[in-house]
Amino acid sequence: MKAVCLLSGGMDSATLAYYAKNMGYDILPLHITYGQRTESRELRCAQRLAALLGADSPVVISLDYFKAFGASSLTDYAIEVETFEESPKERPNTYVPFRNANLLAIATSFCEARGGDAIFIGVQAGDYIGYPDCRPEFIGAFQAVIDLGTMSEKPIELMAPFVGMNKAEILKVGYSLSVPYEETWSCYQSDDLACGTCSSCHYRLEAFRAVGKTDPISYRRTQ
Amino acid sequence: MKAVCLLSGGMDSATLAYYAKNMGYDILPLHITYGQRTESRELRCAQRLAALLGADSPVVISLDYFKAFGASSLTDYAIEVETFEESPKERPNTYVPFRNANLLAIATSFCEARGGDAIFIGVQAGDYIGYPDCRPEFIGAFQAVIDLGTMSEKPIELMAPFVGMNKAEILKVGYSLSVPYEETWSCYQSDDLACGTCSSCHYRLEAFRAVGKTDPISYRRTQ
Repeated sequence: MKAVCLLSGGMDSATLAYYAKNMGYDILPLHITYGQRTESRELRCAQRLAALLGADSPVVISLDYFKAFGASSLTDYAIEVETFEESPKERPNTYVPFRNANLLAIATSFCEARGGDAIFIGVQAGDYIGYPDCRPEFIGAFQAVIDLGTMSEKPIELMAPFVGMNKAEILKVGYSLSVPYEETWSCYQSDDLACGTCSSCHYRLEAFRAVGKTDPISYRRTQ
Repeated sequence: MKAVCLLSGGMDSATLAYYAKNMGYDILPLHITYGQRTESRELRCAQRLAALLGADSPVVISLDYFKAFGASSLTDYAIEVETFEESPKERPNTYVPFRNANLLAIATSFCEARGGDAIFIGVQAGDYIGYPDCRPEFIGAFQAVIDLGTMSEKPIELMAPFVGMNKAEILKVGYSLSVPYEETWSCYQSDDLACGTCSSCHYRLEAFRAVGKTDPISYRRTQ
């Protein structure tokens, strides 16, 4: 069984790849950059994680159009990334329009071309409010699009095993699978030392605190 | 009202753009190349059509990953494009895995970033058998993904006005709107003189014959 695994290099997708491997899948890691601020750091993490998993090097796809479209602080560097404190629950400026549908479309094309059985994506419950393309309904609707829009001889299953978990629960799964969190990157803002103040750092640090572990990466501030 | 219009430069998408303009939309033309054999000719057609429509120049996006994934004679030049006679009804080798979902995902991101109201795609009934991502059920399922996966203040409507028409019916619509078919390109195979033998040329020539018109472009052979 072969599975395309969307491996951004963040803590959720790292856990996901170990989870999929543990389920018995041969992993086809797929890393997609889209002009986000921290793309070079995320790519290094994805490459290192793939090597540690004993998988092939990630297939790397660079999309330039999200930067051209703008409308997100992750891709338009003229817009400042909101800190967690500033970030509204709805419409955070880190939202990249319809990003996950783009990632899943690419993953499905790759999976169908390679004769794969499944696609893994690491969306999780904490993302729901700000990011509509992380919700279980969205994943279910995309599965219907895959079923109708491909002509693979076998069905392609869209797997989002963490879609109902929070980040602390994902960490618990990950520690049981010995995920090397020192090789992951979550910060939206910077790629040398994590800022500690963006929403992504906030939720990551909160999750490590909730499970009583120390995050192995270094922060500029830890609130 | 603003509409993103997927403008490949073929006869269906050219008709579509004129149709959308006639409905009163301001057209945002979007042209996506994906390493297919005839991409430079298609791009020139799209640019010329946008100019004739009085629209902005097309936003042009070049995807390199379909060529990397392969599995289609349009993007892997080592696979010969089947002629119409050779082409099986199911699994023609010109199928590009899940291509239209990728195009629609990009179009939706663009539409959401620009605050657009609608997305037009020129899929049509003749494509159903070989291309699952052209069927009305696929379009309906993708509309659900758009509704769930975007956070635009207004809904984004996915418009596929030709999804139930054959190419002759589309031509009739086009002639009523004075679409300049001499500025369109359909051949899968070559970009100087249309081959006249691939499926795309076959169905185009058949449609012109059905409406009693002469196709204004030049062919190597016309069967």
